[in-house]
Amino acid sequence: MKKNMLIGQSGGPTAVINSSLAGAIDFAFKQENIGTVYGMINGIQGVFEDNLINLTEKFADKPYELNRLKLTPAMYLGSCRYKIKNTDEEFAKIISAFEKYDIGYFFYIGGNDSMDTVKKLSDYTVSHGIDVKVIGIPKTIDNDLNGIDHSPGFGSAAKYIASAVREVAYDTSIYSVKSVHIIEAMGRNAGWLTAASALARHGDTIAPHLIYLPEIPFSVEQFLEDVKEKLEQYNSVIVVVSEGIKDTNGEYICSRGESKDKFGHVMLSGTGNFLKTVVEENIGCKVRALEPSVLQRSAGHISSLTDVEEAFNLGVFAVKAALSGKTGVFSTLRRTSNLPYTVEYTTEDVTVVANAEKTVPRSWINEAGNDVTDEMIEYLNPLIEGVVQTPYRNGLPDYIDVSHLDIKKQRYTN
Amino acid sequence: MKKNMLIGQSGGPTAVINSSLAGAIDFAFKQENIGTVYGMINGIQGVFEDNLINLTEKFADKPYELNRLKLTPAMYLGSCRYKIKNTDEEFAKIISAFEKYDIGYFFYIGGNDSMDTVKKLSDYTVSHGIDVKVIGIPKTIDNDLNGIDHSPGFGSAAKYIASAVREVAYDTSIYSVKSVHIIEAMGRNAGWLTAASALARHGDTIAPHLIYLPEIPFSVEQFLEDVKEKLEQYNSVIVVVSEGIKDTNGEYICSRGESKDKFGHVMLSGTGNFLKTVVEENIGCKVRALEPSVLQRSAGHISSLTDVEEAFNLGVFAVKAALSGKTGVFSTLRRTSNLPYTVEYTTEDVTVVANAEKTVPRSWINEAGNDVTDEMIEYLNPLIEGVVQTPYRNGLPDYIDVSHLDIKKQRYTN
Repeated sequence: MKKNMLIGQSGGPTAVINSSLAGAIDFAFKQENIGTVYGMINGIQGVFEDNLINLTEKFADKPYELNRLKLTPAMYLGSCRYKIKNTDEEFAKIISAFEKYDIGYFFYIGGNDSMDTVKKLSDYTVSHGIDVKVIGIPKTIDNDLNGIDHSPGFGSAAKYIASAVREVAYDTSIYSVKSVHIIEAMGRNAGWLTAASALARHGDTIAPHLIYLPEIPFSVEQFLEDVKEKLEQYNSVIVVVSEGIKDTNGEYICSRGESKDKFGHVMLSGTGNFLKTVVEENIGCKVRALEPSVLQRSAGHISSLTDVEEAFNLGVFAVKAALSGKTGVFSTLRRTSNLPYTVEYTTEDVTVVANAEKTVPRSWINEAGNDVTDEMIEYLNPLIEGVVQTPYRNGLPDYIDVSHLDIKKQRYTN
Repeated sequence: MKKNMLIGQSGGPTAVINSSLAGAIDFAFKQENIGTVYGMINGIQGVFEDNLINLTEKFADKPYELNRLKLTPAMYLGSCRYKIKNTDEEFAKIISAFEKYDIGYFFYIGGNDSMDTVKKLSDYTVSHGIDVKVIGIPKTIDNDLNGIDHSPGFGSAAKYIASAVREVAYDTSIYSVKSVHIIEAMGRNAGWLTAASALARHGDTIAPHLIYLPEIPFSVEQFLEDVKEKLEQYNSVIVVVSEGIKDTNGEYICSRGESKDKFGHVMLSGTGNFLKTVVEENIGCKVRALEPSVLQRSAGHISSLTDVEEAFNLGVFAVKAALSGKTGVFSTLRRTSNLPYTVEYTTEDVTVVANAEKTVPRSWINEAGNDVTDEMIEYLNPLIEGVVQTPYRNGLPDYIDVSHLDIKKQRYTN
């Protein structure tokens, strides 16, 4: 029986969440049993507020637009940070929206919190005999999801970080004075993205020289020893640290950088800036701290093609799973071979991923706790492969218009 | 009469200084009157220290390697910040190197300081009847050079900044809460690069909402008013500021962010971070400060093709000028038409550019001093056009090896 479909996005942005959206809707458009495809604006909030967008109108039979969507970073449908509370009132609102729009298929693209929403909603529909298939599609740059070889979004962020570290290494290579660059990568509790900076090494270029993950307690004293040792060997030392490194007492290193400006205002320096001051005071060479911040999750122009295609396929596979009658699962992938790199798509029960966190195994970090091992490199290598053909216009990436999310429909005038 | 050639690079990096190097040496390899091409390691210091590299051996008849060089950011030959002092002792060393290597042609790729070296050296060779042609090739991301329509290196940095601002705008568009992002662009005294962020606007996307150049005295109070006004219209407000904005007393805004951490250490926050605190305390919404730092000058993977080709051609034209007997000049370009965009290559006396600085004309900044005008946009538009075909390997830009500059020839081991 033909039913309509509803899809939403939730959590923090990545470069490829829209690839999953594109995959899911592209496949849905071709299915006899799926009618109109609706998108929730700002995740589940769009359902509560009856704020939906007709994606069939926007994208069906528009392959060029669909491809732009696939290659646009962040979230076409907008996000929310809302975790449903499991109340009858909330479920009543959701079910009423399902009835109003004749929804038979519900998809939610997100991280562990979003999978919690999928879990609760699928439990409710099953226990109340409501025939709506509820399926998750995973994403996160942090790569901390259980039940999947690696998270969509991670490969692109990894490619960005590795590329940025390499470019910083080239930038600083030109000077013949001693210098230290400290690059702060995202990932509060899991060091995957920080680890990916190791991919910047190639041929005779050995930057980054030191890598500190949040999985290992961080000692400022040992860090200074490490940096001094590297400075004896190299003019220019590149260090990559996770934003989330903590000392042996479990306190965030970044909290040490809390300070007051001339006017008594509290300022937070961040991990990299704090360590910059530490190196300046204790070693005295030129030091620079860099924080790529949100650019590492939104630089669609240097996405990993592997990541884009896998995210797209996970969207496709989620719709397939729903059509085959599954609910309460998320689409996932398993690595079946590393050389050549191959994966297979499957589904897993959403309980595997909801509210859990996968950190870097100790054995993939070197003994000294300041680098990663070859196993990590082998795991990471295929994930950043392939160059996307970003559409460009007037010299810049021609991403799809997202002005429906917020920005008023008026041109800027001076 | 056949003579050898010596070429060097100096000052700060850009994404296309190696394009100029590639252009100059590629053209030189084809000239009957030019013998071996030598490169100075670390600029004029390489001449003083007899630290030269044989570029003919490295690149002649190696088109693939030459193309990699053309597309590699920073400086293959390394840099220095040394300004020659005009002493007989220094000149004696340089002339002795010229004799030792039978040099007839000397090229120096750099900014205003480097052009000062070209000026002094060409004055000396002319006044002492030494037949060595001394020619400058311009570069700088700041676009503050006189005697040229725009500086090589600027277009690529402009493309990076505009692209980064667009990607940050997409990143933040997904949330339905009020937020302010403050992006700090390079350019201490000239606001060209900050202005280029305006190119991020397209279609219905109007970020950046506010742009502050160092040419206009900066009022923190007016800034707060501007941000409040934009927040009334838009959920997410993107502000781009030059690192070099100063208050009406001529004091750098970034110096206000000087602070002490818990242990009494002095920390400099930077302009963006200082303004972040200002917005947090006075407006109270979510605020983030971003500083792309050196990435804006070294992101070779998103160089402007126009910039790469022009830098290459300026290298070619410099060698042409030397062969035609010129000295004490630099290769430059004039814009002959904007639509279609065309330039012509020529030379100018190096005194035009040495030690001078071109800032943004007041008439290209809007009256309120918080945006740029259409004239600026028209000027900027063609400079970021074209996509480079960066060679990729193992998922990352495959830049040419620069380990001869510093990094020891040993592979990293755990």
